[in-house]
Amino acid sequence: MDWNGDTMNHLAQLQQWLADQNLDVAYISNPTNVAYFSGYFSDPEERVQALLVFPDTEPFYFGPQLSVEAVKKTGWTYGDYGYLDHEEPFAKIATQIKARCADPKRWAIEKDDLPYGRYEFILNQFPDATFPGDASRFIEKAKLVKTPDEIAIMIEAGKEADFAFEVGFNALKTGRTEQEVVAEIEYALMKKGVMHMSFDTIVQAGVNAADPHGGPTTAKVQPNELVLFDLGTVHNAYMSDATRTVAFGKPDAKSLEIHKVCLEANLTAQAAVKPGIKASELDKIARDIITKAGYGEYFIHRLGHGIGTSTHEFPSIMEGNDMLLEPGMCFSIEPGIYIPGVAGVRIEDCIHVTENGCEPFTHTPKNLLTFND
Amino acid sequence: MDWNGDTMNHLAQLQQWLADQNLDVAYISNPTNVAYFSGYFSDPEERVQALLVFPDTEPFYFGPQLSVEAVKKTGWTYGDYGYLDHEEPFAKIATQIKARCADPKRWAIEKDDLPYGRYEFILNQFPDATFPGDASRFIEKAKLVKTPDEIAIMIEAGKEADFAFEVGFNALKTGRTEQEVVAEIEYALMKKGVMHMSFDTIVQAGVNAADPHGGPTTAKVQPNELVLFDLGTVHNAYMSDATRTVAFGKPDAKSLEIHKVCLEANLTAQAAVKPGIKASELDKIARDIITKAGYGEYFIHRLGHGIGTSTHEFPSIMEGNDMLLEPGMCFSIEPGIYIPGVAGVRIEDCIHVTENGCEPFTHTPKNLLTFND
Repeated sequence: MDWNGDTMNHLAQLQQWLADQNLDVAYISNPTNVAYFSGYFSDPEERVQALLVFPDTEPFYFGPQLSVEAVKKTGWTYGDYGYLDHEEPFAKIATQIKARCADPKRWAIEKDDLPYGRYEFILNQFPDATFPGDASRFIEKAKLVKTPDEIAIMIEAGKEADFAFEVGFNALKTGRTEQEVVAEIEYALMKKGVMHMSFDTIVQAGVNAADPHGGPTTAKVQPNELVLFDLGTVHNAYMSDATRTVAFGKPDAKSLEIHKVCLEANLTAQAAVKPGIKASELDKIARDIITKAGYGEYFIHRLGHGIGTSTHEFPSIMEGNDMLLEPGMCFSIEPGIYIPGVAGVRIEDCIHVTENGCEPFTHTPKNLLTFND
Repeated sequence: MDWNGDTMNHLAQLQQWLADQNLDVAYISNPTNVAYFSGYFSDPEERVQALLVFPDTEPFYFGPQLSVEAVKKTGWTYGDYGYLDHEEPFAKIATQIKARCADPKRWAIEKDDLPYGRYEFILNQFPDATFPGDASRFIEKAKLVKTPDEIAIMIEAGKEADFAFEVGFNALKTGRTEQEVVAEIEYALMKKGVMHMSFDTIVQAGVNAADPHGGPTTAKVQPNELVLFDLGTVHNAYMSDATRTVAFGKPDAKSLEIHKVCLEANLTAQAAVKPGIKASELDKIARDIITKAGYGEYFIHRLGHGIGTSTHEFPSIMEGNDMLLEPGMCFSIEPGIYIPGVAGVRIEDCIHVTENGCEPFTHTPKNLLTFND
C-alpha cells in the first residue's frame, strides 16, 4: 500500500469522524490500521508506533527511528518523528501532540488493540484525558464497504490463490507429506514474488481434515482420501482466502457425500447473496442444508468472515448478525463438515457483493476435482 | 510445546506469584504466554482466548470451541471451556471464574497485551475489579533465565538457522533476486519440516542492506557486493535469530572495511559476556569500537534483544539497561553499520550466558565468507 487516493480518503474520513464526535485526537496503533490511514505498513513488535490524527490540524507519524526514512518513501508528507531504543517514546509523542492541540481531553483509541499499559502511558502524559471515542468501531465501519480500487486489488490476490491451488493440486503424490505439499505451494508463490501468505497455508489429508483448527503435519498423502487446501495471499496489503477439498484417488462414499452436501451449502448461500439480505440469513441458508442432510452437529463455526486488509473483519456471517448486506462488502462463504476420525470438508470463496448478487475472488472449480499419482 | 515439566513449573511459578502478591486471579491472553503456561499454542486472532489462573485452585483454559479438543491433546488436564462464534464469551468466563473464586477483586492482567476493550469487558462482569498485578512484568522476569531444557531446544533452532545460511549462501547467483534467494531458503527448510520462520527472512544485496528495516526486494544480486542474511526459525515454540553478511565476488574497500569493523564489534562484545557484566556495558563495548572507527552515526539500534519464545524479550542489550547478566539469559549480539546509498553490514549471533562466558546458538563462520557464481 502506498500513500494514494484511497489512503488520503481514509484519513479524511477519520478526521471528519473526529470532528463529528467532538474528539480532540485519535491514537491509531494497530499496524494494519496505521497502513490504512498512512500508506506505511510496519509491524514494530514491542516498539511504539502510532499515527496521531486531529480533526482540524495535520496528523503525524511516530515510530522507531528505523522507520522514519521508510515512511517518507511512501509519500507521506506530514510530520514523521522517531525515537531511539533507549528513549522514552510517550514524552516525545506528548510534545508533538501539544504542539498541535494544547490540551486534548477527548481521545479516540482502538479499544480492540490498544494494550492497557499504553493507555496508562497516555494517561500519565495527559492526566485529564478521557476516552469516549472507540476508533476500532469507526475503522470497522470504514472498512466495511470496499471501493472499486480496493476490490481490484483483491481480485489480484484471488488470482494468486487460484494459482496456489493449481500448484498444490499438482503436488499431490502418494507418500508426500502435507508439509511437503505446503512447501511446493509457497515456493512457487515466492518465486513469483508473492512473499506473504495471509495465514499459514493449510493442507490436510484424510482424517486430518476433520480438525478445522489443525495445520499441515508430517502425515503422508494416501490414495483414496479427500485433501483439504485452505490458503490465501497478501497482495498490496489486501488478502485472499479460499478453501478447496479435492479427491486423491477414489474416496469412500461417506467422504463423497459430505463433499456433496457442503458444496450444495456453499453454492446455495453464494447464490443467495444480494444487497439487502441479512448476514444471519446466509448463515442459516447454508446451515439448514447441512442440518437437513444430518450433519448439522459437524458444522461448528460461522459461515464466513469479512476480508480486506485483514482476514477477519466485518461483516461476520453468522447467527445473530442481522446487518443488511450492501454492494462492496467482501466476505467468505465457507461451510464445513468435520466428522472426527472420518473426514473433513470445507469449501470457501471470498466474494464481493454487487448490485445484483456477488462475484467470487477465486475461480478454481468447486465441484469435486480428482487427482491421481 | 507440550504440557511437560517446564510448562508445569511455569504455571506453578505464576500461582506462587499470585499468592505472594495477594492477587485473586490472572487473566493471561497473549498466545505465546498462554502456551508458556499451558503447553497449547494457538493464535485466536480476534476471538477470545485466555488462561485463568488462581493462587490456590485449579486454572482453566477458555477459547474458541474449535480449540477445546486441541487443548486436551496437549495433555492439559484442568478445565477447558469453549464458546461458539455467536456466543458472548465474557459471561461464560465469568461463570467459570465465580465457580472457583466467588468475588475476585485483585486481578493480574498483561498490561503489554490486554486490549483496553477487553479490560472493559472484565470490568463489566466484575465491577469491583482492580488491576494491581502486571502479569507482563512477571512473565518478562520468569522468561529471563532459561532452563537447560529450554536452551537445548534453542540449540536445535540455532542448527536450523545454520542450515538456512548454508542454503542461502549457495543460492547466490548473478541476476537472482533477493526474493528468489529467500524462496530457496524457506523451501529447503519446509522440506525438512521447519514450517515457521521466527520473522520474515531478510536477504539484502548491495545498497539495500543499508536499510536495516527493509525486506527482500526484486533487486537482483550483482557481483562484487555484500549480501546480508537475517533469519531464524521456530523450533518447538522457541526461536533462533542470526545475521551474516557475506561477499558475492569482490566488494569495494569501503564495504570490506565496515565488515571488518562490525566483526570486531561483534567478537569483542561476545568475548566480554559473562555473569555480572551489565547489559549496557556490552552495548558500549561494541558501540565504542564502531564509533572509534568513525561509523558511530551509522549504528542506529541497540546491540541486542532477549530471545526465547519470542524474538524480542528481555534482557535488552542497550544504553540505560544496567541489568546484570546471569547464566541462562539468552540474547542477540548484533552490531550493524548502515551507510545510506553505500552498503550495510550486520553480524549477529544469539547466545546464552554460561558460568564463565557465553555460547552462541549459531555456528556459521563470521569472518567474511566469499561466494561466486
